Amino acid sequence: MAIDYQKRLTAIQRDLKEQNIDVAIITAPANVFYYTGFNSDPHERFMALVLDNRNQRLSLFVPALDEQIATDESFVKNIIPISDEEDPFTKLKNELGATFQHFGLEMKTVSMFRHNQLKNVFPDASYSDIQPLINKQRLKKSREEIVYLQEAVTIIENVLNEGIKKVKVGMTEAELAAELEYLMKKFGAVGPSFSTIVLAGEKAALPHGRPGKRAFKKGDYLLIDFGVITKSGYCSDITRTFIIGEATEEQRNIYDIVLQSNRAGINAVKAGIPLKTFDIEARKVIIENGYGDYFNNRVGHGLGIEVHEEPSIHEHNDQIAEKGLLFTIEPGIYIPDYGGVRIEDEVYINEDGAAEVLTTFPRDMQILK
Amino acid sequence: MAIDYQKRLTAIQRDLKEQNIDVAIITAPANVFYYTGFNSDPHERFMALVLDNRNQRLSLFVPALDEQIATDESFVKNIIPISDEEDPFTKLKNELGATFQHFGLEMKTVSMFRHNQLKNVFPDASYSDIQPLINKQRLKKSREEIVYLQEAVTIIENVLNEGIKKVKVGMTEAELAAELEYLMKKFGAVGPSFSTIVLAGEKAALPHGRPGKRAFKKGDYLLIDFGVITKSGYCSDITRTFIIGEATEEQRNIYDIVLQSNRAGINAVKAGIPLKTFDIEARKVIIENGYGDYFNNRVGHGLGIEVHEEPSIHEHNDQIAEKGLLFTIEPGIYIPDYGGVRIEDEVYINEDGAAEVLTTFPRDMQILK
Repeated sequence: MAIDYQKRLTAIQRDLKEQNIDVAIITAPANVFYYTGFNSDPHERFMALVLDNRNQRLSLFVPALDEQIATDESFVKNIIPISDEEDPFTKLKNELGATFQHFGLEMKTVSMFRHNQLKNVFPDASYSDIQPLINKQRLKKSREEIVYLQEAVTIIENVLNEGIKKVKVGMTEAELAAELEYLMKKFGAVGPSFSTIVLAGEKAALPHGRPGKRAFKKGDYLLIDFGVITKSGYCSDITRTFIIGEATEEQRNIYDIVLQSNRAGINAVKAGIPLKTFDIEARKVIIENGYGDYFNNRVGHGLGIEVHEEPSIHEHNDQIAEKGLLFTIEPGIYIPDYGGVRIEDEVYINEDGAAEVLTTFPRDMQILK
Repeated sequence: MAIDYQKRLTAIQRDLKEQNIDVAIITAPANVFYYTGFNSDPHERFMALVLDNRNQRLSLFVPALDEQIATDESFVKNIIPISDEEDPFTKLKNELGATFQHFGLEMKTVSMFRHNQLKNVFPDASYSDIQPLINKQRLKKSREEIVYLQEAVTIIENVLNEGIKKVKVGMTEAELAAELEYLMKKFGAVGPSFSTIVLAGEKAALPHGRPGKRAFKKGDYLLIDFGVITKSGYCSDITRTFIIGEATEEQRNIYDIVLQSNRAGINAVKAGIPLKTFDIEARKVIIENGYGDYFNNRVGHGLGIEVHEEPSIHEHNDQIAEKGLLFTIEPGIYIPDYGGVRIEDEVYINEDGAAEVLTTFPRDMQILK
């Protein structure tokens, strides 16, 4: 199965036409990858997919040193290299002329600095934000994309299966994180989709904490939140929380509330109702059990080419859930200086409008001996 | 040795005053880290160090889920959490009032989208770019920072020493990259400072190629370009090119030209002359030997908290080299479908205005048996 880039390009070209946009300049690396298959981070250099909607001409501007790899990998074959000494916007003007009026830009990606450069070269142009058009496309995952996303989930679940066998009292968070990231590559991933989170004991209360020298002790919570990015360019993201050695009554109780909350969130998922419902249903379980103050973030986020994409699943999002959405459900309870539990799964709203859970790793509490 | 955050903050406050900036909003994670010691990527959430220059008040706005870790790690102690449901700019207005006129922003970081949000809340404000002020500070590395940078270099050189022992015919690029990244963590790094580049044979001709299933063969070039980021938050970046098994006359010849070029570039480094000199001197060696067409990028870049920082060492940069600069010298010859050689070192212009080479890994051609 392969990605149909022509279909994606045709769709955006149609949208650009509807909005009377003459030229679209796409510079976010993830969006360039989405439309061309060329996956590259140009750092501070200029890279752009340029869609000239007056004549349907497509060009990919890349740093000169990436010319060959872009030629090999990009679906768009008109590659224009820019050396470090050249001004990209002057080059753009040479390509496009200066007679057109209406640019489409990703306004969350284009900096004020680039905007000023662009204004210098095209002083009379107006701008529209094409991010929403692109997001609208990327938001809805095709079955082909789900195959790639499932591959990313399968790898990370294999890593988790193997990784937890290595856990023992005295090992540090950082050591386990290194083992897990090694296993990711061993199992065929390009690497982590974000910096692997391994947190033990009281540190599990930090939703975005970083693994350090904290050594595992009997009775610790062990929270692992991680994912991979695959060669196909898709991400996974899963969290499981374990107990090391033996669990107290309170630990079991908190775990059970989070598990119920996770199930309630997932059970609520279907097309046709507001996204906030999934957050509200998961949150309700935690509030009713008296831990509402210890769950202060949204219940989930979309993912795909990037590990954070639309939609945002929070309690005020009235957007209606549609077929094709893929997102996490990840409620948690985080008690400062005590510990925390998060259980995170990936849920797809499939062709029937029903929830399809991509993650299969057991969610019941597991004690690591 | 510790970083003097107060000194950094005092310096930027003085610069802001000189430019009559009322309020500076610093949002690039690397800059927030530079001034506070809090090292965090908020992804699409809002994080900002706000310097109110009317009353010298400092505040750090962070996503609510990072509140505790920011409180623990930030030098700036006034932490203002923002939950996912809140509008950061409304919160900012509540903090600051709306009576002032002149904002300082990082115009390469602030997107057109954020700029529009800001204009909605502060419709009459004007803006100045404070990126140059920040860059001017970050450009000049103190001896304390060099200690941290040297630590990052030492780790990566230890990794290289250990890593090349694992090289054997039949191993793939991706396998070696996984080993190297595992060793980074084993030797105490947080992780790679950029995605590790391991390229064999003809693939070594791609300056930014990615490691894949290409297996090592006798007679291959083996190009390794990588670095770490340490717990102190500083980066390293080094390239060495090896030969597997045995080298041809042509391979030796190309290697030798690049080595001479690297030496010529490093030998040119000192304070008081234009930065372009270092590029020109290195490039001259390659051109004179007839390979000028195969070296089509700049000879180096600054690094520090980020792996790409100012200055840019290219043949048209007339900026005068000063004490405190740290940058790479990394000439290369890249011949499509044949292979390539790059030798990259890190050079500091020290307190005496002289070149101090941080990298110590031998540069002579090494054949891996």
